[in-house]
Parts: sequence; C-alpha cells; structure tokens
Amino acid sequence: MSLEQLREEVLEANLEIVRRGLVLYTFGNVSGIDRERGLVVIKPSGVPYERMTCADLVVVSLDGAPIEGDLRPSSDLPTHLVLYRSFPSIGGVVHTHSRYATAWAQARREIPCTGTTHADYFHGPVPVTDPMTDEEIAAGYEHNTGLVIARRFANLDPVTIPAVLVANHGVFAWGKSAADAAHNAVVLEEIAHVAAQAAALGGLFPISQALHDKHFQRKHGPAAYYGQK
Amino acid sequence: MSLEQLREEVLEANLEIVRRGLVLYTFGNVSGIDRERGLVVIKPSGVPYERMTCADLVVVSLDGAPIEGDLRPSSDLPTHLVLYRSFPSIGGVVHTHSRYATAWAQARREIPCTGTTHADYFHGPVPVTDPMTDEEIAAGYEHNTGLVIARRFANLDPVTIPAVLVANHGVFAWGKSAADAAHNAVVLEEIAHVAAQAAALGGLFPISQALHDKHFQRKHGPAAYYGQK
Amino acid sequence: MSLEQLREEVLEANLEIVRRGLVLYTFGNVSGIDRERGLVVIKPSGVPYERMTCADLVVVSLDGAPIEGDLRPSSDLPTHLVLYRSFPSIGGVVHTHSRYATAWAQARREIPCTGTTHADYFHGPVPVTDPMTDEEIAAGYEHNTGLVIARRFANLDPVTIPAVLVANHGVFAWGKSAADAAHNAVVLEEIAHVAAQAAALGGLFPISQALHDKHFQRKHGPAAYYGQK
Amino acid sequence: MSLEQLREEVLEANLEIVRRGLVLYTFGNVSGIDRERGLVVIKPSGVPYERMTCADLVVVSLDGAPIEGDLRPSSDLPTHLVLYRSFPSIGGVVHTHSRYATAWAQARREIPCTGTTHADYFHGPVPVTDPMTDEEIAAGYEHNTGLVIARRFANLDPVTIPAVLVANHGVFAWGKSAADAAHNAVVLEEIAHVAAQAAALGGLFPISQALHDKHFQRKHGPAAYYGQK
Repeated sequence: MSLEQLREEVLEANLEIVRRGLVLYTFGNVSGIDRERGLVVIKPSGVPYERMTCADLVVVSLDGAPIEGDLRPSSDLPTHLVLYRSFPSIGGVVHTHSRYATAWAQARREIPCTGTTHADYFHGPVPVTDPMTDEEIAAGYEHNTGLVIARRFANLDPVTIPAVLVANHGVFAWGKSAADAAHNAVVLEEIAHVAAQAAALGGLFPISQALHDKHFQRKHGPAAYYGQK
Repeated sequence: MSLEQLREEVLEANLEIVRRGLVLYTFGNVSGIDRERGLVVIKPSGVPYERMTCADLVVVSLDGAPIEGDLRPSSDLPTHLVLYRSFPSIGGVVHTHSRYATAWAQARREIPCTGTTHADYFHGPVPVTDPMTDEEIAAGYEHNTGLVIARRFANLDPVTIPAVLVANHGVFAWGKSAADAAHNAVVLEEIAHVAAQAAALGGLFPISQALHDKHFQRKHGPAAYYGQK
Repeated sequence: MSLEQLREEVLEANLEIVRRGLVLYTFGNVSGIDRERGLVVIKPSGVPYERMTCADLVVVSLDGAPIEGDLRPSSDLPTHLVLYRSFPSIGGVVHTHSRYATAWAQARREIPCTGTTHADYFHGPVPVTDPMTDEEIAAGYEHNTGLVIARRFANLDPVTIPAVLVANHGVFAWGKSAADAAHNAVVLEEIAHVAAQAAALGGLFPISQALHDKHFQRKHGPAAYYGQK
Repeated sequence: MSLEQLREEVLEANLEIVRRGLVLYTFGNVSGIDRERGLVVIKPSGVPYERMTCADLVVVSLDGAPIEGDLRPSSDLPTHLVLYRSFPSIGGVVHTHSRYATAWAQARREIPCTGTTHADYFHGPVPVTDPMTDEEIAAGYEHNTGLVIARRFANLDPVTIPAVLVANHGVFAWGKSAADAAHNAVVLEEIAHVAAQAAALGGLFPISQALHDKHFQRKHGPAAYYGQK
C-alpha cells in the first residue's frame, strides 16, 4: 500500500466515524500505520471533518517526528504512537468519545459480554483502565494515556480485544487497519448501548464461555465461516 | 409467485430492516420460502447491503442443499431452515440484533404485553428462549438455535406470536412472507423500546386479556376491521 | 374554510406526525372538523402515508355517517367523534402511540409538570385514564375509549390541557385545528421524553404554580406576549 | 464586524442549534452583541426557523430599546440583556430546552464533571440555579431569570463555565460570540446525555482536579495545544 493509499484509507476512516454518529464537531481521530516504512498518518487537530482532505492529514514517524504536512497532528497522537509500539500487530487506531461507550468509561465499568455481537468482536469484557494519577496527567499526559492502556493489556490480547475504555475519558479502539479500527469503534458503541439498556432492564447475564468462543471463532478463528471466502 | 419475484421480495425485506434502523453493517438477515417448490431464498453472508442485488441472494432447498447462487448463504441459514420446517405456515424469517429487543434478550426477560401495539401484533408476551447448553453450542450451533426456538414454542402458536428473543443473542421474527416478517421485526423493536421506557418509569402493567384480545382480533381475527378490505 | 381546505389541513397534519417521528408505518391518525357543516375529515385506515392524498381522506358526519370517500375511515374514528361531541371548542384530534408518551401511558402515570415547555402547553399534569373495563372493551370499544377520556376530563378543561394518556394504549391530543392538535402531540412527546429522563435522574420536582401560570399565560393568556401579534 | 455581519452570525447560530437537534419548532433563541456600538441582535419571537432571514432579526440597545426590525424580539430578550450586562466579556447568548440538559434542570441537579469532554469546555460542574420565587416570577420574569443566573455566578467565572441550568426550565449558554455560544450549547447537550447514561450505569465518578485542569488548559490555557495555531 502506497502512502497515498494509506492517506485515503485514514481519511475515509475518519469520515466513517462521523457518518456513524460517533463524533461531534472535530472530536475523535483515526490514524493508520505503514509498518514497513514506519510512518503513521493521522488526522490534524481541530480541522472540521466536512472540509478535511487527504492533504490535511499529518505524517509522522513512529517516534513522532514530523515527516509530511503543514498542520498540527491530533493532540492525541502520542497515545496512538504508544499503542502502535506496544501492539505490534495493529494497523490502525481510533479515538472517540462515542456516547454510550463513554458513559461506561465515566462509570468506570468494563462492559461485560452479555450478547453475541459483543462475542463476535471482543473475546472478553471490554476493559476499563485505571484512573490516571496526577503525575501521569501533569507531564506527558497523552503519552501516559497510551502507557496506562498498555498496562491494562499486560495480560490481555489486543488482537482479540481490540478496544479499551479510558476511565472518565472515552474510547481507544484499534484493528488490522484504520478501516478495521473504525469498524470496531462503531460496533463497540452499539454493544455499549445495548448493554446499557440490558443493565437498565435489570440483567447483565454473561454469556457462557462456549457461546462466547463459538461466536468469536466463527468470525475470526481458523475455521471461520462468516462472510465470503 | 415466481422465484424471481421471491428474490425481489427477500431483497426488499433485507433493505427494509436497514432503512428502519434494525441492523448495523452486514448484521441481520431475511429469507423467504416458496413452499410449493420447497426453495428458500436468503441473504448472502457478509455482503454490504448497499450493493446487494437479487443476483447475490442464495437459493437452497429446505434441507439446505445449494440450488442457485455463487455466494455463501448467511451463516444463520440453518436456524431459518429449522423454523420453516417447524412452523409450516410461515413464509418468511428475519434475524436481527435490533437494539432494544436485544437488550431484553440479553436481560433474559420476555417482553410482557403492556400496550396495544404489542397486542395488535403479538397475542401474548414475546418469549425468550432458554440459554443454550454447551453441547448445543459446540456442534450444529445454528441448527440448534432453531431447535431451541421450536422447543420454546411447544405450547405457543407461532402464527399469533411471530417472534422470539434468543437469550443473550437477538431476535428471530417471522410472518406470512419475508415482507411480513420484516414488518413484525420492526414492530417488535418499537414495542421493546416503549416497554423498556415503561419499565424505567416503574411500571409494566399487563393489559387485560379483554384488551389484548380486542386489539389482536380487530386486526387479525375473522371479523377484523382494521385497514381496507 | 372549505371542505377542500380542511382536507388539505388534515392531510398535512397526518404527514406532520410522520415527519416528527411520532408514528410507525400506518399507525396514528389525525382528523379535523368543520363545525358549521358538522363534518369530520379523517385519515383512512391502514393506508401508507407515503402515498396518501386528499382524495383518500374520509368525510363523515358528527355521528359517523359516511358522507364522502371510498375508503374505510380509521378504526379509531368513534373515539374522535366522542371527543368532538364532548369538547365543543376543539377543531382537530390526533391519535398516536408516540414512544415516550406511550411509555408513561403503559406505566399508568400522569406526566407531572416539571418544566416550562410543559407549562407552555399544558396547564396541569397530562392525565392518564382509568384502565377500561372488560365491558367497555367488549362492545363499542373505540366509542368507549372516547367516553373514558371524557370522563377523565369531568373536572379538567380540555382547552388548557389538550391531551390525555389512555392507559396501556397511547395518546389522544387535540387543539383548535388539526394542525394545532398535531403540534400539541409533538410537544407532548418531547415533554414525555424529557420528564422520563428527569425521572431517571432521580427527580420530578413540580414547578411552582406561579411559574406554571406564568408560562401558560405568556403564551395563551389575554396578555400573551409570545410570538408575533 | 459590521452590524450586517453580526446579523449573519446570529442567524447562522440560530440555524445551527436547529441542525444539531437542540430545538423543536420555534423554541430556543440566540443573540449576539456588538460591544462597541452597544447593540444586541436577537431572534424574533415565534418565527419558524425554516423561513427566518437576517432581516427578521431584531436589533435592540443594551437596555432593550428597539433599534431596528419590525418583529417582536424573543420573549427571553430581557434574560439575554441581563447576561450581557453581568458578564462583560461574553459576545453571544443561547437559550434552549435541549432534551438531556433540560432533564438535569428539571431534576434540579448540577452536572458533575465526570468526563474529559466536559472538562474541555466547562471548568467545573455545570451549575443549576435556585428555583425562582413567586415574586421573581410575578413581575419582570424574564429579567429576573437573568438575575437568578447572575446570582448563581457570584462566585463562578462565566468565561470558564459558559452555561447554566435554570431550575425546571432549561439552558442558557454563552461564549465569545453567537457561534461560540451555540457551540457550547451543543457540547452541553452532549455531556448532559453522556452523564445521564453514566448515572444510569450507577456511577458518576468526578474526574480528578488534575485531569480536569489538564483538559481545560490544553484547550483554553495560555499554552493550549489543541487545534491549529
């Protein structure tokens, strides 16, 4: 994939989270990475989505050095970079404050798996980070946000649980590509919404491990049979 | 009705559940059956609705043998087939994870009849299945989903209660045709939404049997007087 | 106003409740009355809104005798007629199952006045009827629905409280005209939604009588100063 | 900025709150002020947004004397004027009954800061006024609404907390300009919605002061680094 194609995919993924109702104004951001070249393409900070073009996207190295672009990158760039370094197999990262997922994050509750759509995409509860310490906030805040997420995944697999709730903040999701990350963020918002309603109806019954595995594997396992070959 | 007409009706019913907001991405599926020929037409697996055409639909026999179509059928096909075999009078089946109905399913609660729109369409509570056992999940999962539904209807009439909540999963609805099944799925989501709000307001007062019967009969009984003759 | 103009206003009011999201499919209906001629114009039963024209509307006398139109009138016509006879100053009636107002109706709770928009339109709580008896349901159900509403308004002024929740059923709203009735039904749904959220947040604090009166009077009183002269 | 430009900005801000779903019918209103000339431009009362033009806007002096325009100004004008006089640095005022913010107002609860979007815009909880007394309501109601708000801000900074909930009523928001005020009103509705859902999930954990300050300062402080330079 050329850098130009990556720019187009990242732009499209940024627009997708707008179309799906995950972001308000200029909130939210998506990036994608070219692992071979070690280049990250990310949304610029505070530019309206309606007039964003591929040329507005910012290209940086994996340690954040500016490579291309006249605009400032998203202020959340350091979080994206930590995630790319911590999770070597991911190709795209999304940050949103989508409504229901953020409500869970503000309530500091992980989203338990109580439904098969959750199981299709997340092989376990969607975890919530610890609240950040004053020290973590004071200096290098966005970088530390990434570290707090990475720490939360010390014993979790980011490939099979491709999102996290940052306490009192919002969502980071990721995937094989920018498009895949955006897709996971959209699904996360949907399962957060349904689970919130189920909770309101008095019940969050975890699905059985067998059902959880079945749904995840039929979509992602070696013998997956969802979708076309 | 020709097979081509059935394809068109099934395509249209698939698009209807998208337009009505019942599905996200490629989730959900609708099928229709030609009882005379013993042929079932169903949505292909994982194909975006925006570019789905009649030619993409898959035709199978009532025992699932492929008849026409190059694409894989929906992975939920075996559930549809069990329903067609168990409920001989139905002509269409819909599967969705529509938001509020799924919340009830995740809370493992049947939807009690507390309103007249519910009574217009469902002659009793909308039932919820038992959770599936590990054995039922391990092999023949989609087929067994159908059997679990059929078992739940051992003492219920699928004609007067044309939908079910599958515990921790979602909705199967059906009807005289694919269009009718989609219509029932849309109404189910609406009544699930209203009932959830009524529950939040502290009250789920079942309507009286007389009112329940009145509404169902004025729409579906032999002396129905709703709509045009 | 000619009968043709009344037909146009009634059609427009029917379409307005669709545009505002108060109705699903063919649910809901609006009528208007020509008091001089004693003629009521109402939506036909079960005709899709998308292709409804003025010619589809049904004209009946105040006792329900058919005057013009080939289609069956809405099955709720008898309720409309009782309301026109019981409340001589109203010019239009709307029936909906709009989501949040219906949730209150299903919870059998009146909507208390806890906000100024409520006060702008309804000079007191929006009342809920008694559940109907089996006898009232068995024969003349729609007619009796009207009587149950009229009975609920024995000590209420339908001009200053232009809507009611019918227990386990939905909404009837009315107004000076069909357009005004539709407007009141839309506002009712909005205040039902806000009040449900306020209830969820733990508080339904009735506004003071002074504030209630102030808002109602600045919009409807003899010295009203809202809007243009 | 010419008066004509101010009219255009005020019209645009009025339309923005409609597009963002904050207002129903003719509810809500936005004004802007030209501090040099001492002129306030405000929406007329009760005119449909769909056909509102710059020429319909009303221009008054800071003490409410009519300067330009044939239409009556919004009945809430006196509240706007008190806010402009009490908060000398603001350039625009918005009044809405947006759904979730109004639910908090009806529940008479301030919105605690439990998320970073809240922290980005409001440097503290969004306060709620005291209920108004019968005397405040009886005469000079809209003027007194302004005074009640100003009193609530006796020890708060309207620049860093640019909105208030008026008990049992709705929202007043403000900002550097009419556009900025509308933007703040839109964000307020979003954070009110998310906080309501977080409350429903059982937790309103205030964010730490360090995180609150960090987010507010990175957007508004002297060393702000959000957006483009």
